[in-house]
Amino acid sequence: MGGGGEIAGEDGSLADLGEWGLIAALKARMPAGALTSVGIGDDSAVVATPSGSVVVAVDLLIEGRHFRRDWSSAYDIGVKAAARSLADIAAMGAVNTALLVALAASGTLPARWATELAEGLALEATRAGAGVVGGDTARADAVTLSVTALGDLENRHPVLRSGARPGDVIAVAGPLGHAAAGLALLMAGVIPVPPALSSLVAAQVRPAPPYDAGPEAARLGATAMIDISDGLLADLGHVAAASGVQINVNSSRLAPGTALREAAASLPTSSENLAAIAQEWVLTGGEDHSLAAAFPPDTMLPARWRMIGEVLPGEGVTVDGAPHAGPGGWQHFR
Amino acid sequence: MGGGGEIAGEDGSLADLGEWGLIAALKARMPAGALTSVGIGDDSAVVATPSGSVVVAVDLLIEGRHFRRDWSSAYDIGVKAAARSLADIAAMGAVNTALLVALAASGTLPARWATELAEGLALEATRAGAGVVGGDTARADAVTLSVTALGDLENRHPVLRSGARPGDVIAVAGPLGHAAAGLALLMAGVIPVPPALSSLVAAQVRPAPPYDAGPEAARLGATAMIDISDGLLADLGHVAAASGVQINVNSSRLAPGTALREAAASLPTSSENLAAIAQEWVLTGGEDHSLAAAFPPDTMLPARWRMIGEVLPGEGVTVDGAPHAGPGGWQHFR
Repeated sequence: MGGGGEIAGEDGSLADLGEWGLIAALKARMPAGALTSVGIGDDSAVVATPSGSVVVAVDLLIEGRHFRRDWSSAYDIGVKAAARSLADIAAMGAVNTALLVALAASGTLPARWATELAEGLALEATRAGAGVVGGDTARADAVTLSVTALGDLENRHPVLRSGARPGDVIAVAGPLGHAAAGLALLMAGVIPVPPALSSLVAAQVRPAPPYDAGPEAARLGATAMIDISDGLLADLGHVAAASGVQINVNSSRLAPGTALREAAASLPTSSENLAAIAQEWVLTGGEDHSLAAAFPPDTMLPARWRMIGEVLPGEGVTVDGAPHAGPGGWQHFR
Repeated sequence: MGGGGEIAGEDGSLADLGEWGLIAALKARMPAGALTSVGIGDDSAVVATPSGSVVVAVDLLIEGRHFRRDWSSAYDIGVKAAARSLADIAAMGAVNTALLVALAASGTLPARWATELAEGLALEATRAGAGVVGGDTARADAVTLSVTALGDLENRHPVLRSGARPGDVIAVAGPLGHAAAGLALLMAGVIPVPPALSSLVAAQVRPAPPYDAGPEAARLGATAMIDISDGLLADLGHVAAASGVQINVNSSRLAPGTALREAAASLPTSSENLAAIAQEWVLTGGEDHSLAAAFPPDTMLPARWRMIGEVLPGEGVTVDGAPHAGPGGWQHFR
């Protein structure tokens, strides 16, 4: 990445670089992808689908809403934009094969910012095993990114939200509440972030979903799975509703770790109930892009799948058998 | 479309409707698609790919840049957003199978606007044979749409930009310059638009690409094809560059029709060279989303494929053997 030749104009603005220069600069940094038969540069891309179907998801990220250029480097924003869509593919039990990236920005944006964004996108696509096969560019006041991810099921059935059955166990792969704690630190202006807490800020600005845990869960027989983007309880609520079941989580298995408790203590406004603040991040914090799945009760789970609860007859999500009193997950437009 | 039950809150704003209400309202209006095995509502969609590959393209549309809400109805914007991506699939010689739509808007946007947008998207997807299988919603100041289109090659090879050979003929399906003339009428404030010219405004705000002409061209043996989005000469320039050939078009086959000449005459500023203005629309006007293709010289072309030129050894695009002196096609960021 970045080792290839640079395009003339990369030291100027996007307006200096021009649309074709921008596309060439982005293309030069992108992995082609093992299954790509037509990549960037034609009207459409063509990607092989060995299983006879394609898994596909799209996410839209808008400056000021999903990222801030003063909090995140272009590189980190590229990683995050890719990760959000790549995690949606993993949550179906599929492997990632390809990304398409549409970028809108002002002509005054430094071209260097766009090429660093491309390097972040390329890194995360490569980490997930995907090529970057196409996209679009446009002009807009706010930096806007649309990332479409494609995946392949390797001849398995997709793991939907709707398959959880009473008796299943609920397990999670990846951190919980780290991205929310990192956001709280950024919003509170805790600068410099203590080294012990830098992983929380990193989780917010540069999430690292456990992509291969998705296909792994499918191979283990997962009955339902979801990407935790809105918060654990909110996303388990989607699984419960789609499956027609109740999901109960055990708070003893969701105790906040040291970093979360230290982050709560470092907030300027917090004084009284640090444990409750950290617990709330674990239960309702969004944007971790960890995976939550239901498994048959006798499943031998690898260590990274931490059992946190169980599926019951009924509806809704409970914590230790009771509804959670907190503010719940995130909703757009509210 | 729209015949289904309405969702509570559709008479209010997007903030009233909420994210889940918006998704439900959009989903209720969307065609499922014949090849869809998992549609809207899970982490990703799953779409069958009978040919063992998927054709995929994405387009980003931003309010103020690609559409204006005072010029176009929400319904028309939905049609246009879908058409731009669907035409990219057709230009590969593929049939459309699925769309994903991401919408960002302000919470103050009337929910009715979003549902009318959905009806336009649904209509155009249906016209092209595609289901709407997924998407995303977010909040933004400017209405922003990202449309990802998927297609299937029906076991044919994709028709790329790079296959044109000296001796081939160049033909076009669909109108040329209509969208540009419509834009000129809108920008000049020619209101009311004379009935004879309303089709030009319609071509701008609600393009109707000849989707089935794409697979038709592939079956006829087209060696190269492109969606005309930037203007005929600019897009043929992409074909010439990718194929390593010269493309010459014959102005006698590109004479502006009556509507274009009347549109030029109706512009308040135009007085002297109406024929030149109309000719420029044909040669360089963008956004028609017609298809241009190269065919072997002995191809029996159906009537809707109008022969306009030929492929020669060399490079670049010429009109009657000479470079075109006009301003050329459209570039973003300039």
